Amino acid sequence: MAATSGEARFQMRTVYVNGEYRPENEASVSVFDRGFLFADAVYEVTSVLGGRLVDFSAHMARLKRSLAELGLPSPGSEAHLLAIHRELVRRNDLDEGTIYMQVTRGAADRDFLFPSEDTPPSLVLFTQANTLVDKPAARTGLRVISVPDLRWSRRDIKTVQLLYSSMAKTEAKRRGVDDAWMVEDGMVTEGTSNNAHIVAEDGTLVTRALSHSILHGITRAAVLKLAEESDIRIEERSFTIEEAKRAREAFITSASAFVMPVVEIDGTPIGDGKPGPVATRLREIYIRHARDTAI
Amino acid sequence: MAATSGEARFQMRTVYVNGEYRPENEASVSVFDRGFLFADAVYEVTSVLGGRLVDFSAHMARLKRSLAELGLPSPGSEAHLLAIHRELVRRNDLDEGTIYMQVTRGAADRDFLFPSEDTPPSLVLFTQANTLVDKPAARTGLRVISVPDLRWSRRDIKTVQLLYSSMAKTEAKRRGVDDAWMVEDGMVTEGTSNNAHIVAEDGTLVTRALSHSILHGITRAAVLKLAEESDIRIEERSFTIEEAKRAREAFITSASAFVMPVVEIDGTPIGDGKPGPVATRLREIYIRHARDTAI
Repeated sequence: MAATSGEARFQMRTVYVNGEYRPENEASVSVFDRGFLFADAVYEVTSVLGGRLVDFSAHMARLKRSLAELGLPSPGSEAHLLAIHRELVRRNDLDEGTIYMQVTRGAADRDFLFPSEDTPPSLVLFTQANTLVDKPAARTGLRVISVPDLRWSRRDIKTVQLLYSSMAKTEAKRRGVDDAWMVEDGMVTEGTSNNAHIVAEDGTLVTRALSHSILHGITRAAVLKLAEESDIRIEERSFTIEEAKRAREAFITSASAFVMPVVEIDGTPIGDGKPGPVATRLREIYIRHARDTAI
Repeated sequence: MAATSGEARFQMRTVYVNGEYRPENEASVSVFDRGFLFADAVYEVTSVLGGRLVDFSAHMARLKRSLAELGLPSPGSEAHLLAIHRELVRRNDLDEGTIYMQVTRGAADRDFLFPSEDTPPSLVLFTQANTLVDKPAARTGLRVISVPDLRWSRRDIKTVQLLYSSMAKTEAKRRGVDDAWMVEDGMVTEGTSNNAHIVAEDGTLVTRALSHSILHGITRAAVLKLAEESDIRIEERSFTIEEAKRAREAFITSASAFVMPVVEIDGTPIGDGKPGPVATRLREIYIRHARDTAI
């Protein structure tokens, strides 16, 4: 169960579920919750550094967009959600890690038709203590494989339809590497839970443009802005796995990985097979920015 | 909540959750259940006629296949699952309706990686009382719209990643009709929760061949077999919405709709705009078969 998986936990977490703070082993939702029956739910993951929330407003803006795209009811104001995030940090004494938040269309007897609009949404939040900054992988880099992208077509909406991403990540680990990059119509879309980027031979940062095909990463946006301010040239366009293999560097961005170098794709080392200077520098700059702006 | 949505229910259902029979308002799963967090779950819906289960073994065979495709652990033997189905029929005094069964990869701290293989799967079953045979729609026929198929690519695995189907069905109702047929690469895949079929000008029953693109419908298979036995010619191939509009008849099949005529597609009446003789006959034959073979 939650209490014992991953690293050993000696203290039970406190989890937020629909207005109540509960011990994690008593945190539950109805079997009729549409998050459980239809994957009719969206989520956000916000990082915590030094007990403070990173890019919180950007996560709330994206949540609002996901809710609007699906006609999901709002679980409350940004101030209300911020208060819950902070209360969870406090109750769980969280210094470094993430806060997961999920909003569903609520519980109703099973029907493909959305329930009546006065059905209250479900709201679940929980913390995960984790080392985010001092990660060995930032020094060694990640190795990835490519897999076909079989997900639904609206990846810009951050739904819990994550089975394929989960399968791809598990397959990567089974094959002895760290993650998978997904490919559609010959072009890389993104990683299983992160955006994919390369640094071309001439030093240009190449990253797929925003569309329905990829998640509009909060960390992606922040890192691109920081890269621009550091006079790195940026090209927003699709690229192939072959181009990525020939790139000078490759890296991913996500709310919990920040910036993480990729040093191997499908067995081919990228550059000299070590984390490159651009990814390493962007990681440092982003972490400084995250610490400086966390609330 | 579940107890009051849809038609008024005066008795609380008994629901099965992980080894226990519980009142529906106390039937819950952990917020860490992977069915809730990752849509890492599969399901089956079995019809009940006269208190007996229709096509039960076929549903169990498909469940087994879905579990195998995803490396999901088994929730128990067919005999064990049959016993739970029958106990739910008994406890809920169910004469006509459906039994929903969902299997998830269980509860574990949130991680895209599958949890250790000894994580027990979650098993949830509940009944829905419903009129299945004497449905007005069988006499008037359904009206459908076409929508692009935006679902993931493995629709042959019966996962709970049902958000898009749910959106499409809700959009159809919003536009004043009954359901949506999904179209990919110009060809009809299937309905939101049913297989789509047409009867061509020469009387041939045309239905898309099985592949990863559509659900391998239990009722589809049974109806095709019965059609064959009734000397109806069958062609398993893809068809367009245009061909469907020009067809003599159109209909859907599903475990709970059995065979249901479609009389209008995107505003165009099919044939004379009334349920056709082939669909009507196949519905009768299937219901007789279902009653005769239910266990």
